[in-house]
Amino acid sequence: MYLTKYFLPILKENPSEAQITSHRLMLRSGMIKQSSAGIYSWLPLGLKVLKKIEQIVIEEQVAAGHIPILMPTIQPADLWKESGRLNDYGSEMLRIEDRHGRGMLYGPTNEELVTDIFRSHITSYKDLPKTLFHIQWKFRDEVRPRFGVMRGREFFMKDGYSFDMDRESAIHSYNRHMISYLRTYERLGLQAIPMKADTGPIGGDYSHEFLVLAETGESEVFYDKKVTDSSLGERKIDYSDKQGIAAIVESFTQPYARTDETHDQNLFNKLPPERRLSARGIEVGQIFYFGTKYSESMNAEIVLPDGKRTFVEMGSHGIGVSRLVGALIEANHDDLGIIWPTPVAPFLAVIINLKHGDKKTEKVCEKIYENLVSAGLDVLYDDRDERVGVKFATMDLIGIPWQIIVGPRDLSEGFIELKFRKDGKRTRISFSDCSSELLNALRV
Amino acid sequence: MYLTKYFLPILKENPSEAQITSHRLMLRSGMIKQSSAGIYSWLPLGLKVLKKIEQIVIEEQVAAGHIPILMPTIQPADLWKESGRLNDYGSEMLRIEDRHGRGMLYGPTNEELVTDIFRSHITSYKDLPKTLFHIQWKFRDEVRPRFGVMRGREFFMKDGYSFDMDRESAIHSYNRHMISYLRTYERLGLQAIPMKADTGPIGGDYSHEFLVLAETGESEVFYDKKVTDSSLGERKIDYSDKQGIAAIVESFTQPYARTDETHDQNLFNKLPPERRLSARGIEVGQIFYFGTKYSESMNAEIVLPDGKRTFVEMGSHGIGVSRLVGALIEANHDDLGIIWPTPVAPFLAVIINLKHGDKKTEKVCEKIYENLVSAGLDVLYDDRDERVGVKFATMDLIGIPWQIIVGPRDLSEGFIELKFRKDGKRTRISFSDCSSELLNALRV
Repeated sequence: MYLTKYFLPILKENPSEAQITSHRLMLRSGMIKQSSAGIYSWLPLGLKVLKKIEQIVIEEQVAAGHIPILMPTIQPADLWKESGRLNDYGSEMLRIEDRHGRGMLYGPTNEELVTDIFRSHITSYKDLPKTLFHIQWKFRDEVRPRFGVMRGREFFMKDGYSFDMDRESAIHSYNRHMISYLRTYERLGLQAIPMKADTGPIGGDYSHEFLVLAETGESEVFYDKKVTDSSLGERKIDYSDKQGIAAIVESFTQPYARTDETHDQNLFNKLPPERRLSARGIEVGQIFYFGTKYSESMNAEIVLPDGKRTFVEMGSHGIGVSRLVGALIEANHDDLGIIWPTPVAPFLAVIINLKHGDKKTEKVCEKIYENLVSAGLDVLYDDRDERVGVKFATMDLIGIPWQIIVGPRDLSEGFIELKFRKDGKRTRISFSDCSSELLNALRV
Repeated sequence: MYLTKYFLPILKENPSEAQITSHRLMLRSGMIKQSSAGIYSWLPLGLKVLKKIEQIVIEEQVAAGHIPILMPTIQPADLWKESGRLNDYGSEMLRIEDRHGRGMLYGPTNEELVTDIFRSHITSYKDLPKTLFHIQWKFRDEVRPRFGVMRGREFFMKDGYSFDMDRESAIHSYNRHMISYLRTYERLGLQAIPMKADTGPIGGDYSHEFLVLAETGESEVFYDKKVTDSSLGERKIDYSDKQGIAAIVESFTQPYARTDETHDQNLFNKLPPERRLSARGIEVGQIFYFGTKYSESMNAEIVLPDGKRTFVEMGSHGIGVSRLVGALIEANHDDLGIIWPTPVAPFLAVIINLKHGDKKTEKVCEKIYENLVSAGLDVLYDDRDERVGVKFATMDLIGIPWQIIVGPRDLSEGFIELKFRKDGKRTRISFSDCSSELLNALRV
């Protein structure tokens, strides 16, 4: 993409309404524009990141055997009467009346709708287990939306719903979700720690939130140093292996890790002092096995092998996709701007022309651009007629992992320069074989 | 995908609420489920088709140099007061009040929001031309929603907005849209004819609707036989070539083609009788150059090369993505069910096991499945314990282009069978080298 043909509206000033880093950087780098309180348009750069996150989330859900569907944003209020949540939900729910006076609402979550789909089509244990998920816009009418996409009103979320014939199978679904979430966060370049979560009036042990450590996190978190040493890494996951999956879950959840909501100081004190850590965390997902709460109220029954009928066991599992854009920035930035982890970077590299108007330099830039694009890489070319300082500042701000710096002086010696945004390290690359050497460097 | 692990809720009976073929077939084949009048959940099979269409639409817009953004579904009413459309829009607009009593609405279209983005960030001719598009859910509160996704209330639409410094450039944007739309429809396997459309109170010559011929179309259309002989085919398009693009547009729009709204019988009668055709058509897109209607009312000005200020020239260009799913079925079906054009088929092929429980047949099916999936093909495996007749009926209904039929009798002679859904033609393929022969056949 040639920058002069793109739409990258960089703000020079710090926007006064932004209280936290990610909000400030997203506005400054032209990723989003507020359209009303807590509601944003995603401009080209922001949309690219959002879509990359979405794609990784989808891939990991599909890998875990979960099935994509797409439920609408507008739901009938009647279904929420059945579940009893229409009044419970309070004024965070955006209630709507259509032209015929029918009660509708903008879905803040989808337990009712998915249970209705389930009960309309599935009646036997033979069709279980089944997890249906979707990634769709949700609305929660926050009284005081803030922090940009971190606590917006219209937000993009993956929510998955598991249906199982019994508790054992439901716990396996829960565990599958935990592992697929951990893998998702790792692929995004984030360490998210599963922490025991409050299960509210329903009770039970089966809810975890996933928290990313960041100074600006909304929750205080307490954890055993061991948890941050855990990672799935490259290990192959067999999602059909109940015991194997359970053992991995155990290894991640056995060490102490809780938010202020579930923190137990006595339990925490049993850890050796050097392993007791506390920090701030941003919630980026939650999984919850709640049994038959919705299947009972909405009458979603299945027939068991012995011919008896029972209410289907359910769980809800969510990842905040638009929120993750903010969380990723909170966890990856410096004074100059964003530092995108490569898997979610809007572009892998940017070509910076140090001398606008210099024919030879422009020609080399264009040639590099063509080479990289033909190799299937997603590259930006800063072809603006701007001072070099402005170009570097822009590219540091928007956080593209690699800067390919092309100027007449280096070129006259047969070189271009490659800068890695994260550590600022610069490498000279001989231009004669720039295609292969550059391609190798970028594919690190 | 193993069918027993999938979620494909086939209906045995014809749903009584469905008045047209596509609606009936989408319900029967488990592509959608209605959640309330004119609002649907997309079940796995339907979502796959929707996503494939979306992807083709995106690719062709990007190829034309248009830039993806994503605007929210909920818009502030204030912007529509500025443009003067808040009252004009009438009761098709879903109006909402948030918890603070602020006027909001579920966007039926996005001229206001995109003009607001434009005027906030672009002030100079130097940044033009620019076309911003998005694919987002829209809502129109139809008084009588019907025909399934063809006239739903919540629908998925690509809408693009072009911004140009003058009329000439704006007409080139218009022409770019026409060509990119024609290419999109062709890639989807549809012939859509551009027809002169009513420009309403704004006037001007620059609006075309795109209509797919189908018996169940909502409009009567009149056209010169020549238009159905036109196609872009494989020709390479250079979107920067104003004259070249204009010439292609001319070749598609010069022959007579109008809907009943703009039909001119006198003009039509000038055609030789054998070229005068009439039929029914389904609208699947519309492009419109309307000049400064919104830039004037919303004060979106740009500075010209001579330093003078002027209102930016705009156009709106839409493709109904969810509607296309229905239109594709209207144009591609027979008595047995849907016949998907390959580019939008939910799966390329299905493996049909003729003898459930037969170890050897199952093993071969699984091996074929593994081979095709490793080759990157998207394949369904009908591993259900069902009668052969039921399997064939299901697969004919859901319209997967290729059926790979595996049974013990053929296998004992070293063969499997390949059936093409569209013409029912069956070919025997020797099983020993099934990988390569089958792969070649499927890649036709």
